Amino acid sequence: MKVWRLRNEWDTISPGVYRQIQAFDDNIMLMVVRIMPGSIVPKHNHRNVQAGLVVKGKLLFKTDRGELEVSEGESYYIEPMENHEVHNITSEEAVALDVFTPKREDYSAYTRLPDATF
Amino acid sequence: MKVWRLRNEWDTISPGVYRQIQAFDDNIMLMVVRIMPGSIVPKHNHRNVQAGLVVKGKLLFKTDRGELEVSEGESYYIEPMENHEVHNITSEEAVALDVFTPKREDYSAYTRLPDATF
Repeated sequence: MKVWRLRNEWDTISPGVYRQIQAFDDNIMLMVVRIMPGSIVPKHNHRNVQAGLVVKGKLLFKTDRGELEVSEGESYYIEPMENHEVHNITSEEAVALDVFTPKREDYSAYTRLPDATF
Repeated sequence: MKVWRLRNEWDTISPGVYRQIQAFDDNIMLMVVRIMPGSIVPKHNHRNVQAGLVVKGKLLFKTDRGELEVSEGESYYIEPMENHEVHNITSEEAVALDVFTPKREDYSAYTRLPDATF
């Protein structure tokens, strides 16, 4: 078993959007994302499947086909290469847990070894 | 994109331990688990990799090799076939998001179609 502790170190994705990679292997990668009120994850896509859960608050997802709000406790699934952008249109911070499969190779620099292994 | 809404329907895994399968495909499955104070996920293992994040509260994980507390915002990784049990030894409900890869075939009966697809 391996454990990754929460650290007070957040990478900035875009203004007001912060990322922390957590548990991962080659197949899977967990990432906590904090999105401040009014902030946006700009439109992008990637070859990885992305699934995730809104842990706190509410997020507005936009794809080329439509848009939808996803609230705390609800989950989403984004196909490989599907364009998507994410907005926090509320007045409260939103937190999501994103899961990628396979891991995001382009995020290798943001990973860290587990804090505990046993 | 697909979205699974939170529902007020929870499957009981063991006394005081409740499960709700969220987003999934063949490779990946997200599951919200609520563990009441004093409740236990009994020792078990499965062929699937399990990674997860403690969304609320604190959980004590025990494996054949040791035990460790994992707190809100921290993540864990459990190898295929690794025995593990999970205890909520606090006085507050704990919530975790578990991610399995590949999906748990034995949980097929607990999955549901997305509430929105676009």
